[in-house]
Amino acid sequence: MAQFINRREDVVTEAIDGVLALSGGALTRLDGYPHIRVVLRSDWDRSKVAIVSGGGSGHEPAHVGFVGKGMLTAAVCGDVFASPSVDAVLAGILAVTGPAGCLLIVKNYTGDRLNFGLAAERARAFGLNVSMVIVGDDIALPDLPQARGVAGTLFVHKIAGALAERGADLETVTAAAKHVIAGTRSIGMSLDTCSVPGSPKEDRIPLGKAELGLGIHGEAGVEQIDFAGARASVATMVERLAALMGEGPHVVLVNNLGGTSVLEMSVLAHDLLQSSIGDRITHAIGPSPLMTSLDMQGISISVFPADATELELLKAPVAIPAWPGVSQVRSLVVAPMPDGLTPITPMPSNHAGTRAFLVNCCNVLIAAEQDLNALDAKSGDGDTGSTLAGAARALISAIDRLPLSDHTQLLRAIGQELSQTMGGSSGVLLAIFFAAAGDGASSGLPMREALRAGLARMQEIGGAKIGDRTMVDALAPALDALGDSLSAAATAARKGANYTATLTRAKAGRAAYINARQLEGHIDPGAEAVARLFEHLAT
Amino acid sequence: MAQFINRREDVVTEAIDGVLALSGGALTRLDGYPHIRVVLRSDWDRSKVAIVSGGGSGHEPAHVGFVGKGMLTAAVCGDVFASPSVDAVLAGILAVTGPAGCLLIVKNYTGDRLNFGLAAERARAFGLNVSMVIVGDDIALPDLPQARGVAGTLFVHKIAGALAERGADLETVTAAAKHVIAGTRSIGMSLDTCSVPGSPKEDRIPLGKAELGLGIHGEAGVEQIDFAGARASVATMVERLAALMGEGPHVVLVNNLGGTSVLEMSVLAHDLLQSSIGDRITHAIGPSPLMTSLDMQGISISVFPADATELELLKAPVAIPAWPGVSQVRSLVVAPMPDGLTPITPMPSNHAGTRAFLVNCCNVLIAAEQDLNALDAKSGDGDTGSTLAGAARALISAIDRLPLSDHTQLLRAIGQELSQTMGGSSGVLLAIFFAAAGDGASSGLPMREALRAGLARMQEIGGAKIGDRTMVDALAPALDALGDSLSAAATAARKGANYTATLTRAKAGRAAYINARQLEGHIDPGAEAVARLFEHLAT
Repeated sequence: MAQFINRREDVVTEAIDGVLALSGGALTRLDGYPHIRVVLRSDWDRSKVAIVSGGGSGHEPAHVGFVGKGMLTAAVCGDVFASPSVDAVLAGILAVTGPAGCLLIVKNYTGDRLNFGLAAERARAFGLNVSMVIVGDDIALPDLPQARGVAGTLFVHKIAGALAERGADLETVTAAAKHVIAGTRSIGMSLDTCSVPGSPKEDRIPLGKAELGLGIHGEAGVEQIDFAGARASVATMVERLAALMGEGPHVVLVNNLGGTSVLEMSVLAHDLLQSSIGDRITHAIGPSPLMTSLDMQGISISVFPADATELELLKAPVAIPAWPGVSQVRSLVVAPMPDGLTPITPMPSNHAGTRAFLVNCCNVLIAAEQDLNALDAKSGDGDTGSTLAGAARALISAIDRLPLSDHTQLLRAIGQELSQTMGGSSGVLLAIFFAAAGDGASSGLPMREALRAGLARMQEIGGAKIGDRTMVDALAPALDALGDSLSAAATAARKGANYTATLTRAKAGRAAYINARQLEGHIDPGAEAVARLFEHLAT
Repeated sequence: MAQFINRREDVVTEAIDGVLALSGGALTRLDGYPHIRVVLRSDWDRSKVAIVSGGGSGHEPAHVGFVGKGMLTAAVCGDVFASPSVDAVLAGILAVTGPAGCLLIVKNYTGDRLNFGLAAERARAFGLNVSMVIVGDDIALPDLPQARGVAGTLFVHKIAGALAERGADLETVTAAAKHVIAGTRSIGMSLDTCSVPGSPKEDRIPLGKAELGLGIHGEAGVEQIDFAGARASVATMVERLAALMGEGPHVVLVNNLGGTSVLEMSVLAHDLLQSSIGDRITHAIGPSPLMTSLDMQGISISVFPADATELELLKAPVAIPAWPGVSQVRSLVVAPMPDGLTPITPMPSNHAGTRAFLVNCCNVLIAAEQDLNALDAKSGDGDTGSTLAGAARALISAIDRLPLSDHTQLLRAIGQELSQTMGGSSGVLLAIFFAAAGDGASSGLPMREALRAGLARMQEIGGAKIGDRTMVDALAPALDALGDSLSAAATAARKGANYTATLTRAKAGRAAYINARQLEGHIDPGAEAVARLFEHLAT
């Protein structure tokens, strides 16, 4: 599986530098590349408790993405899925810890525990006040005494970070972090494995199966289960969570493990709120990629029964782009449909001249059906004649409903009829032509100008220009010449139609896909229809 | 390819309802399900120009995710990759358009142009003031007169939205939108196709290839090129952009097409800023999923030469979670490494008794090497004896460097020696034990209490409790009994060590993976080492 990386060895440093360059100066890194990859707040003055986290990379935006005022003071990054070294963690601690001390937030993996733990000891030997909490929110393996730390860690980052930012002391921040850890439960599910840079992708999950209870390092889930859609997946996860979560209202954190589409994440969020614990979820963070497992097509759900203070700390605004904020879960707001969707039916009226004119035009198109189909067969699917004739027949049969004595209303009404009876793009485009012409007429334009306004709108929407081998090539010159006489218009229309036979490259419509030789010498059927119409009217 | 959806027909409405429920009441939808899917700002009072966009679904967070104060007033959603109907668009227009009018922002696809276009006509027939702009930012097909609209559309949404929010009139907002469209250029690249709900995944891109110049509907790219890593991919895209972008500073929008990991996106962003147009990029939006193609593992890059006013409109803050904001591109801030990474070397000092005691202890462990290895072979990889003996030998050879006359410093120094010479988890854990004991001693604890503090820290970090079949089972009772006498401690250590032979389930360390029968009757090698040490000291 190819990935957008360069050398495997550089992936973490390049990614960090990418984030830094786009942080607007908010983030700084230590000059310790390639082995020591520590990112810290640029504005940090050591006056408050420092919050340091980190671990293996591959969980982006964690942890660098959560460094900033009100969350992490520094992040220490290991290689992909590998703990940072003791020296790297120590560098992070030393770079940010002042008299108020430092809290290390560590996900429960042996490597992280040991390396952060020893770094803490070494920092203490310098007289620094360092405390450490270990997050183990994963409930996938209830018998495992040391649960893994997964996305629920974000609750700890945010609450500890917000508290520290307000000036709480190390003891208070540490106790708050421990309280969050005690209440947080997470579980994950995935439909595919992740792609570890430089390693072949493990093809472990067969189609039709999902893995439940997986970590964030590509390790296999606790079990493979039958996959039965989003709702059933959420129900399975929720069942596990419900057995172990506390009473009362909870905040949920919906984490995209990396490769799940935004569409799917929203469906999953919907199903979660409809699930058996839905009515206990009062607030949500995400859905968002927060603690990913590279590009894994999976999700994790974390729940935490925040009290009022904790909720307020979670909600405290931060200028950290990767943090999606906390939203309150509300019932859907549904507004009534607006009036006006049913088209206004114009009052029918009669006008003998207009009626005759209209029927006359329709008959021209009906008579041309076979010829136009034949022309269309050269460049399209041979149905232009039938489409136009069908619309003409429909218009004749609707003639008693039309407002024949009011030309403005009539143009709009024809547009409406065409949009309902004539299929395809050409039906919509002609509907637009007549509707816009009606619009022009209603604003006082003379008929010729109104028709030109209709043409302009049709061209704007359809995109056809003169020379694109469409009906526009005949219609545009005809309308331009209409000011002189109908016969001038007919001549112009015919000239324009004939011109299309010389155009060997159609740029709009279906003929755009046909090659030059097939088109040469054949008039565009739409242009021919326009020419015949004007020629008939001029005689 | 399985996906987290339920019925294909419900995917769009369920996803929209998921977003709505988590919008905290900010978003409302029209009561038009299943066919009319229109989402609008709940706080909209029709006093300003309404900004309406939309199109096919599958591009999430576009377009619903960008509805909110300062961006879109309403989004009209079609099925996945299919234009919404004329009625749906009209419903959207009618629901939000007041006297100030409405701007439709339409991506350049025939279906969207026609349906939005005809809906605009029908809205105009009601006397509404509706204008429409068509975005065609894709440069993949430079000869195509009608370029597709892709992620650059976000520039238009944001600038038009911010301008409308400030009360600009429709003419001004429309002109601004057209100016943005004229200057925006985008190009996309992908390593894999997307998974359309309900359709088999097309396996079009062979390994080692990438598609350049693709749209956002799963259609094939303009060409397949050899894939040569992130930097080369960016260089290819940048070359196309450079040929068509304007002079001067640009804002770049880095769009995740849906399935690209956050890690990869940051690498790509890094490479973009280092590319030949890097010095012309002054500001960036993303990397972020903005206009996705479901779960496509791809990226698009859009550039726009914003003037001062446009930049300010882009930067105007909005409370829209999917909008990542604009960051200023800055050169990296790199801070010097902190002092203190090189461990403080304690002043060597001599003390005959301590020296003899220490060498004595080391010799006990050296003598036990084979026995401990044999015990470890029952449950691990048979190297506990060698690991401990190696550390003991290293300590003896370092003895002249140690501060033998200062017990506090000595404990820390032993911890430091062990962390440098002893591999694996046990080395780190013993280093933590001695460092924390030294810490305890330095804060005035008597030696026995200091050692207990060291044990507590080691247990906290390592996670081993009594009964977990580790050295703790011998060390903890020994330290508890040390207050009575060394011989009581030895008795307790031996009892604890023997107890481990009855434990058939290890809960920490490598033996946790071994089954019960293999463990039964064998003493844990770490516990045995502790017992032998105390027994020897007591004799």
